[in-house]
Amino acid sequence: MRRLTADIFDDGVISRASLVYRTVEASFAIAGVGAMVLDTEPDLPPGWSTACLAVDIVVLGFFVLDWLTRLWVIPLSVDGISAASARMRWLTSRASIIGLLSFVPMGLAAFIDWSATGAPVLSILWVVRFAHYSKGIDMLFAVFARERQAITAVLFMFLTTLLTGGVLEFLVERGAQPDHFRSVPQTLWWAITTLTTTGYGDMVPTTSLGRLVAGGLMISGLIVFGLLAGILATGFAAEMKRRDFLRNWDLVAQVPIFRDVGPGTIADLANLLRPRELPGRTVVARRGSAGDCMFFIVSGEVEIQVDPVPVRLGAGEFFGEMALVTGATRNATVVTRGATRLLVLDIADFRAFASAKPELLDIIQQEAGRRSTVAAGSA
Amino acid sequence: MRRLTADIFDDGVISRASLVYRTVEASFAIAGVGAMVLDTEPDLPPGWSTACLAVDIVVLGFFVLDWLTRLWVIPLSVDGISAASARMRWLTSRASIIGLLSFVPMGLAAFIDWSATGAPVLSILWVVRFAHYSKGIDMLFAVFARERQAITAVLFMFLTTLLTGGVLEFLVERGAQPDHFRSVPQTLWWAITTLTTTGYGDMVPTTSLGRLVAGGLMISGLIVFGLLAGILATGFAAEMKRRDFLRNWDLVAQVPIFRDVGPGTIADLANLLRPRELPGRTVVARRGSAGDCMFFIVSGEVEIQVDPVPVRLGAGEFFGEMALVTGATRNATVVTRGATRLLVLDIADFRAFASAKPELLDIIQQEAGRRSTVAAGSA
Amino acid sequence: MRRLTADIFDDGVISRASLVYRTVEASFAIAGVGAMVLDTEPDLPPGWSTACLAVDIVVLGFFVLDWLTRLWVIPLSVDGISAASARMRWLTSRASIIGLLSFVPMGLAAFIDWSATGAPVLSILWVVRFAHYSKGIDMLFAVFARERQAITAVLFMFLTTLLTGGVLEFLVERGAQPDHFRSVPQTLWWAITTLTTTGYGDMVPTTSLGRLVAGGLMISGLIVFGLLAGILATGFAAEMKRRDFLRNWDLVAQVPIFRDVGPGTIADLANLLRPRELPGRTVVARRGSAGDCMFFIVSGEVEIQVDPVPVRLGAGEFFGEMALVTGATRNATVVTRGATRLLVLDIADFRAFASAKPELLDIIQQEAGRRSTVAAGSA
Amino acid sequence: MRRLTADIFDDGVISRASLVYRTVEASFAIAGVGAMVLDTEPDLPPGWSTACLAVDIVVLGFFVLDWLTRLWVIPLSVDGISAASARMRWLTSRASIIGLLSFVPMGLAAFIDWSATGAPVLSILWVVRFAHYSKGIDMLFAVFARERQAITAVLFMFLTTLLTGGVLEFLVERGAQPDHFRSVPQTLWWAITTLTTTGYGDMVPTTSLGRLVAGGLMISGLIVFGLLAGILATGFAAEMKRRDFLRNWDLVAQVPIFRDVGPGTIADLANLLRPRELPGRTVVARRGSAGDCMFFIVSGEVEIQVDPVPVRLGAGEFFGEMALVTGATRNATVVTRGATRLLVLDIADFRAFASAKPELLDIIQQEAGRRSTVAAGSA
Repeated sequence: MRRLTADIFDDGVISRASLVYRTVEASFAIAGVGAMVLDTEPDLPPGWSTACLAVDIVVLGFFVLDWLTRLWVIPLSVDGISAASARMRWLTSRASIIGLLSFVPMGLAAFIDWSATGAPVLSILWVVRFAHYSKGIDMLFAVFARERQAITAVLFMFLTTLLTGGVLEFLVERGAQPDHFRSVPQTLWWAITTLTTTGYGDMVPTTSLGRLVAGGLMISGLIVFGLLAGILATGFAAEMKRRDFLRNWDLVAQVPIFRDVGPGTIADLANLLRPRELPGRTVVARRGSAGDCMFFIVSGEVEIQVDPVPVRLGAGEFFGEMALVTGATRNATVVTRGATRLLVLDIADFRAFASAKPELLDIIQQEAGRRSTVAAGSA
Repeated sequence: MRRLTADIFDDGVISRASLVYRTVEASFAIAGVGAMVLDTEPDLPPGWSTACLAVDIVVLGFFVLDWLTRLWVIPLSVDGISAASARMRWLTSRASIIGLLSFVPMGLAAFIDWSATGAPVLSILWVVRFAHYSKGIDMLFAVFARERQAITAVLFMFLTTLLTGGVLEFLVERGAQPDHFRSVPQTLWWAITTLTTTGYGDMVPTTSLGRLVAGGLMISGLIVFGLLAGILATGFAAEMKRRDFLRNWDLVAQVPIFRDVGPGTIADLANLLRPRELPGRTVVARRGSAGDCMFFIVSGEVEIQVDPVPVRLGAGEFFGEMALVTGATRNATVVTRGATRLLVLDIADFRAFASAKPELLDIIQQEAGRRSTVAAGSA
Repeated sequence: MRRLTADIFDDGVISRASLVYRTVEASFAIAGVGAMVLDTEPDLPPGWSTACLAVDIVVLGFFVLDWLTRLWVIPLSVDGISAASARMRWLTSRASIIGLLSFVPMGLAAFIDWSATGAPVLSILWVVRFAHYSKGIDMLFAVFARERQAITAVLFMFLTTLLTGGVLEFLVERGAQPDHFRSVPQTLWWAITTLTTTGYGDMVPTTSLGRLVAGGLMISGLIVFGLLAGILATGFAAEMKRRDFLRNWDLVAQVPIFRDVGPGTIADLANLLRPRELPGRTVVARRGSAGDCMFFIVSGEVEIQVDPVPVRLGAGEFFGEMALVTGATRNATVVTRGATRLLVLDIADFRAFASAKPELLDIIQQEAGRRSTVAAGSA
Repeated sequence: MRRLTADIFDDGVISRASLVYRTVEASFAIAGVGAMVLDTEPDLPPGWSTACLAVDIVVLGFFVLDWLTRLWVIPLSVDGISAASARMRWLTSRASIIGLLSFVPMGLAAFIDWSATGAPVLSILWVVRFAHYSKGIDMLFAVFARERQAITAVLFMFLTTLLTGGVLEFLVERGAQPDHFRSVPQTLWWAITTLTTTGYGDMVPTTSLGRLVAGGLMISGLIVFGLLAGILATGFAAEMKRRDFLRNWDLVAQVPIFRDVGPGTIADLANLLRPRELPGRTVVARRGSAGDCMFFIVSGEVEIQVDPVPVRLGAGEFFGEMALVTGATRNATVVTRGATRLLVLDIADFRAFASAKPELLDIIQQEAGRRSTVAAGSA
């Protein structure tokens, strides 16, 4: 029981149960945030407000339970230290603190000013819970960190343009519309809606000169935005390349047949392979479909459904290379038996690579020959 | 008759007739959608509504006919299986289902609530018909699939920012404008128009603090948008490269003179060549124009209009290399004789490649020499 | 006189006179367009309208004169054919037709409906005149042509989303606002202002469901825009690379000392060098400034201002390599003597290249040694 | 005292004191600009206006003092010339002129029309002060310079589209709304708010044809914007690559153990290493954290906190390679002793490089062996 629960909560393992649990957790958080947001509506039908409160209390209870369960099972996921110190270390981890923030402030707010002020603000904390799971969010922050200097420069340009535009427009337009363009802070509000091309239309210049300044500000907005997109595109491409390489290097090093190839070839392979994580009982390749990639097993086990007896392959073995070499469709369906990590070698990369590194093609063919012998013997 | 019709409907073959038919089909769909959309206008001149209905019925009939004809001719496009099983297989294909969706629901809606509700919704199905033909749409989906994780992260950032901005603005602005910023759901509407920089102007903050929150939201919108553009740019460049390589590899392998070059050279060529598909009687190169590329014929036939007798080249031959080597203008006009697939080698790539792979230059020169002898002999 | 005029009008030659003339031409066109646009203003001060008309007539006369002069001098810019056939060929060129379009329709419109309708429309033709000179415009069109398929797919997505959003919003919102969301065409207007995030605010959904659809449409707008930016970024980068290579290859082939290096090295150099065109009497490098690049002369002549006698270098020679090797500041000011085309080798590329191709470094050092001997001898 | 002040003001040296001073300077400028902007608000609470004036006078005084102090200490930062000529040269530098512009015009404006007109305009000069420090701003300008031609072409397209759209809309819409679409200049205002997708909503077309033109203009706006983003992305990526290479080349050349490797390897390393500047007493690596990079010391000194006696490393030495090779966590905390410049070699790059250049791995291992012997001897 406790072992099973531990597996569900362990981020490093991907099982059906843990995927289901994450979906349940997300549904609770969404329901809770929805109920809180809805509860602020003043003219709800009678009874809805009570229903919203009930939903929020259930969600709150769920998060308390989630946190306590994680505290209970955490020692099973950590080796070599006592249960007490594993719990103590987890208590100060990011996961635990995010968990605590999901219910402690919310519970305190209940005694003060529940639905009107506190709750909507705190509901944001429930959304932040999920940032913890998203690998993509980490990546976006890495891109921001990498392009820190350039982004700062763009924001600086943005602020300088904003101030310049606001001050000029104030001087130009205050004569014609003293009510709207009354002061620089007031005009800065107009300037930001114009520079970001939002354009509410609550303040609109009417003089020719004022419109010229406004036009310049809009074009500056497009340029600033274009620069920002360019900077983030450059940073994203660079970060992407770095991550893929690191991740693949670690995975390639775990495949036995690649242990004897030189580090140069491993580096090349790490640039070519793309990882794929699959839960159990999932179809990897279907008999008769186009064979456009081959697979290396990093961990877990797959079953090749051939007659009379299915062949099982485990960590360090590979499959799907036949369809790739001959260009024919898959001649067997392949299904994962448990959570499995695969490395996928695309047909485009395979062809380019096979021509540049003939020795690797040999390794794969020898291994394929050896395996078919074993399979024949076991049949 | 049936064979001709089959050719028109076969997606794999490009003939004048099939191009014309696709244009006709597109015109029918556009006319039908236009008529449906127009028909919802309440104060149309008398008679227009009837005309719209007539157009829609004609278009509907055309789509029924199109589907039936395709069902009739499909056995001619498939080899090795019986007519009945070819039809059965086609019935469950994407093309057939899109065809059925074009008229079955439309016909049913006619009995219920034609012009007011059903028809406009269903007209969307007529637009979707064409997604089937567009290779570009597939590519966009591949880009989305490739950048799934990063796009999810951006949408997550977007939603978090939206909720945070909406809640803050609600707390800050509800005092000053209790009518507009009445509840969090109401304020979320304002937040999304601001974060996407749409700015309708139906709800505009008036307090200083509310405007600060709004300014922050607008800038966040620009950053989210910049990130999205960056992610999609990165993914698009990568997908583009992969597709070009795969497509060209398949085409290069069909050119006879490239059969003896090693796989490394084929991989290099696949990176250089760009494919071009042309219908019959089209001018490929005009005498006297600048010679900025050479062509390899993958399938079909071209005619080089030289005196006294035009030379015909078929699959596996090439032309246009003279102007490329000497830098002179084209010395003959080249016209396709039927639907032709060409591979284009750009002058820039040719020069770089010829310096790196002198042996390929030899092959091309030998072939050119052989061909000019043949041409002289045939004259 | 006629020779001088021919030089001014020849696009291939860059002289001070031709630069001045282009600026004058641009000023005339801008003044003409400005006068036409201003003339449509109904409550201009008395006399302004007459002044606008006068400006337009002067500009029109200028364009007539420009066209006639070009016709007169064109034979001097073309070799090997008779004056009459040179003129005949020019008459059908793009430059001549744009010139004719600048005054023929304008002159005809004068007899019909000058300032109210015809003139503003025709003034657009005066703006188009300049597209003829801009090399950048050609490049933008090449990018569009290259990414034709992907851009079509995005526009298709755009239209499908527009129609879907418009139809859904019509069904959802017509109950609450029958005046505004009266019909699908009416709602499509709202949809396009929303999907492009323009947001005029003349039609705004008020129901919850209508706002959900609107929110979806805005986010789709950001995604479509991001895709477009990504596609154009990819195409622009590819086109840029292709152009630079072609242009540089042609220029490198004109420098004598590169004639003996192999084509591989020329291809590498073509990737490194960047061209620069300068009019006469312009400072290329100033004594004492940082030496961050070296220069190769493609055509024209420069003067190195050293004591006692300045050294003159012509086509095929190079300078600025000393500061590059030693990292010191420039030890002499270099000035062009007439219109000069240079190839610039950046310090970053120079260092990378010198390490990879030591033989080229030798060629440059020998040439530098030879030149300093000559310089010493001439002193 | 004067030496210490000189260090604070020297841009080339990074010390805690200079970082603090820059922050103070920024705070003063922000406070000054804020006070000026606030002062234009007509209905401020009594006394606030006086407070704003006081803040501005203090800030003005600070900038005078800053300029005078820089003039006083500048001779200490420059070697080999007399104090007078160092000051004279600095007086004409960009830094000095920006300093003068911060207070001279401001002081003059005080006598004329302080808070109403002059001050807000001049406050922009205080913002520009900081552009001087931002390396990112220089880079943005380099990107603009590099893509000059393409950006000009886009702006030209923008203006042509603007004029075409404005003129067409004027002709189409003036019948229905003669008040709003009164003249071409008036309609150009509408056109620019539409083309930039700002959409104030003060002028909105109501005819079907007018809305078609508007829709086309909005889509053109997205395309122009997408092109701009693409151009700036391409330029930014190219400029980034150039800068990183140049900066790293200079830094790598200062590390002694790289002196004997060939220039090819230095060029490769310059592409891999990333520089990091740290003030004194900063933790570079913490014991127990993941070892994902190694460091080379360019200047300054770090202390490796091992028992019993900490080891100090200076310019030309390196650390952190153990954790990198073994993949274990850091086995010691490393702290800078003063301002230190480091080159960081990322684990991803290290693995790729070690496989391609085994000889460099040898150099690093020998050096590591030598150093551990020294460390053991000193222990």
